[in-house]
Amino acid sequence: MNYFSSDFTLGILGGGQLGKMILYETRKYDIATKVIDPSNEAPCKIACNEFVQGDLMDYDTVFNFGKDVDVLTFEIEHVNVDALEALEKEGVNVYPSSKTLRIIQNKATQKLFYTDHNIPTAPFTRFAYTSEVKEAVSNGGVTLPFVWKSAQFGYDGNGVKVIRKIEDLEGLPNVECIAEEMIPFKNELAVIVTRNPKGQVATYPVVEMEFHPEANQVEYVICPARIAPEVAQQAQQVAVEVSNAIGHVGLLAVEMFQTENDEILVNECAPRPHNSGHYSIEASYTNQFEQHLRAILDLPLGNTQSKVAGIMVNLVGAEGHTGNVKYENIEQIMELPGVTPHIYGKRETRPFRKMGHVTIVNEDIAKAREIAAEVKGTIKVISQ
Amino acid sequence: MNYFSSDFTLGILGGGQLGKMILYETRKYDIATKVIDPSNEAPCKIACNEFVQGDLMDYDTVFNFGKDVDVLTFEIEHVNVDALEALEKEGVNVYPSSKTLRIIQNKATQKLFYTDHNIPTAPFTRFAYTSEVKEAVSNGGVTLPFVWKSAQFGYDGNGVKVIRKIEDLEGLPNVECIAEEMIPFKNELAVIVTRNPKGQVATYPVVEMEFHPEANQVEYVICPARIAPEVAQQAQQVAVEVSNAIGHVGLLAVEMFQTENDEILVNECAPRPHNSGHYSIEASYTNQFEQHLRAILDLPLGNTQSKVAGIMVNLVGAEGHTGNVKYENIEQIMELPGVTPHIYGKRETRPFRKMGHVTIVNEDIAKAREIAAEVKGTIKVISQ
Repeated sequence: MNYFSSDFTLGILGGGQLGKMILYETRKYDIATKVIDPSNEAPCKIACNEFVQGDLMDYDTVFNFGKDVDVLTFEIEHVNVDALEALEKEGVNVYPSSKTLRIIQNKATQKLFYTDHNIPTAPFTRFAYTSEVKEAVSNGGVTLPFVWKSAQFGYDGNGVKVIRKIEDLEGLPNVECIAEEMIPFKNELAVIVTRNPKGQVATYPVVEMEFHPEANQVEYVICPARIAPEVAQQAQQVAVEVSNAIGHVGLLAVEMFQTENDEILVNECAPRPHNSGHYSIEASYTNQFEQHLRAILDLPLGNTQSKVAGIMVNLVGAEGHTGNVKYENIEQIMELPGVTPHIYGKRETRPFRKMGHVTIVNEDIAKAREIAAEVKGTIKVISQ
Repeated sequence: MNYFSSDFTLGILGGGQLGKMILYETRKYDIATKVIDPSNEAPCKIACNEFVQGDLMDYDTVFNFGKDVDVLTFEIEHVNVDALEALEKEGVNVYPSSKTLRIIQNKATQKLFYTDHNIPTAPFTRFAYTSEVKEAVSNGGVTLPFVWKSAQFGYDGNGVKVIRKIEDLEGLPNVECIAEEMIPFKNELAVIVTRNPKGQVATYPVVEMEFHPEANQVEYVICPARIAPEVAQQAQQVAVEVSNAIGHVGLLAVEMFQTENDEILVNECAPRPHNSGHYSIEASYTNQFEQHLRAILDLPLGNTQSKVAGIMVNLVGAEGHTGNVKYENIEQIMELPGVTPHIYGKRETRPFRKMGHVTIVNEDIAKAREIAAEVKGTIKVISQ
């Protein structure tokens, strides 16, 4: 394939923020792109060569969109997998593959895949309906507390609930789900593994999610993770095992728990550029979006090491604010060294809506962490 | 001004490669953009919110384009300055200003400005017509050899000729020009100075242009320049003097000679992102395009230091090749650590046409220089 020719087209399913960041990198290589998204206001619209409005879950829409591209990828998991499989049969290079997406798209299937492949993960039980979970709790098959997870269409914390007493199950959708044992953990870690169709593999350093001591919410994504080298090595090894077992192509972000006994358990994975890799834009030799492109175009993978330490802070809408967004004190944080805001361009803010992120880079990770705290305490996403 | 609101628009005159790289950065801040370029195939077309086709030298076209934007900038100097001045009177923020552009647009005016402001520069004489240069040579007013430079519309080496004998003047356009003394120099250096309307100034490290030992052509742009710290300090100081004298806003790239006696002489300057700053995309805490935006939007300027050493190699069309472009061995150079190609997306190559650039970053500048030589010896821009 000659990617750098006018005959080549890369198709992307989903035109959101991740797609937009992939598109920046296609401009660097001058790769022609075509994007489909249900929203006519999708962020990708002004950065691709051709934009199509359409339903990503509709078989015909996805098939027709994909049949004349050379390589097809996605920036969101909720796409019609049957259409991807049909496109593969037509000779379209779909990366990651429909097989990969089938394993990951359904959380129950994903968890079963881990146990089938001896990949360490928290014990769980799969249920066809949430109503069955209640019965299992009643008859002692499942022990409180546990984590209920909807098998499908969970995204960014939706479809996940900690169940401490049986009443907590009330109001949950009666869908396919899993009940997962609650594992006390020291750290939540993530590793991005990349592979191209030739089979070259490149693994990013381990990142650490630092939680707010009270709110139990991720505050900082820190690279490199401040953990013992043996634990980091083990986390990278487990992530590569997941990647090998799946045989994926592209980026695979593997989220893991470091338990109190320093065991590594896989939580879940995502076959696409990931929030835990945003730090790489400023900190890494090769950012995750460029690496995803290199991988799916079967180009040599880039250097995954960091130039400097990187910390990412998500910009979420403040509580009590709904309406036209204002980034209060953004100019103050831009005065701090090594601070780069990324504004996603959503016009309306809502409490906890992801509106952007800020990256802090520094040669000294402790200094970066200090500046990150200052960023976090200064900028506010409010309504006007 | 609220840049992060849907009411704000940044206008850019010129839709070429530099504009495209400015546009990447506007996406990061979600700033709405409007671009004008004479070509309907301009690289910026697919990365801006609104594209207008039009002549940048036509008063009415530029005035009408600029009158409803909040901030107006340019990525090329050849634009109608009278229209910019009229827009300033209408209250549009034009950065850099029409005054800055008037000083720089005409090389004779620029050189006179340096001498008027005691900025060191090579001795020269201004002529209204090239025919007058011949007379001056005949009567001994100008001594051979010297450098003939057209006062207007010189770009990327066009409009510059070394005159060793009087016959070398034959065939040159009979236009306003200067005859500049040839100064033997050790190094060609450049410094980018940035200033915002508030008056904050930030200066990038000195970069060095390394020439091919025989071909007298720039092969590598190297940051930091491998020169004595005192010389670097002097070069930065002279660049800041130029910037102060002009009172510019935005990016100012100052090209200089380090003479054999370690004097610094200003060659010329450009009020926009510059080839000598491309290394900053991969190597600097704040790349020149983001910095230009920060400056013209009166935001705090970013950190101009480098994370790692950076070397840039221009990708120019190989001799003997005209037609549909092919980047031979691009995959080989992508295997090297810290190597990022930037392909400008021109479909046709011609000998010496600028088709892209490659950046090489490394913690060790000597290692970066080694890899840069390998890049230079491997990739070829040829026709298919």
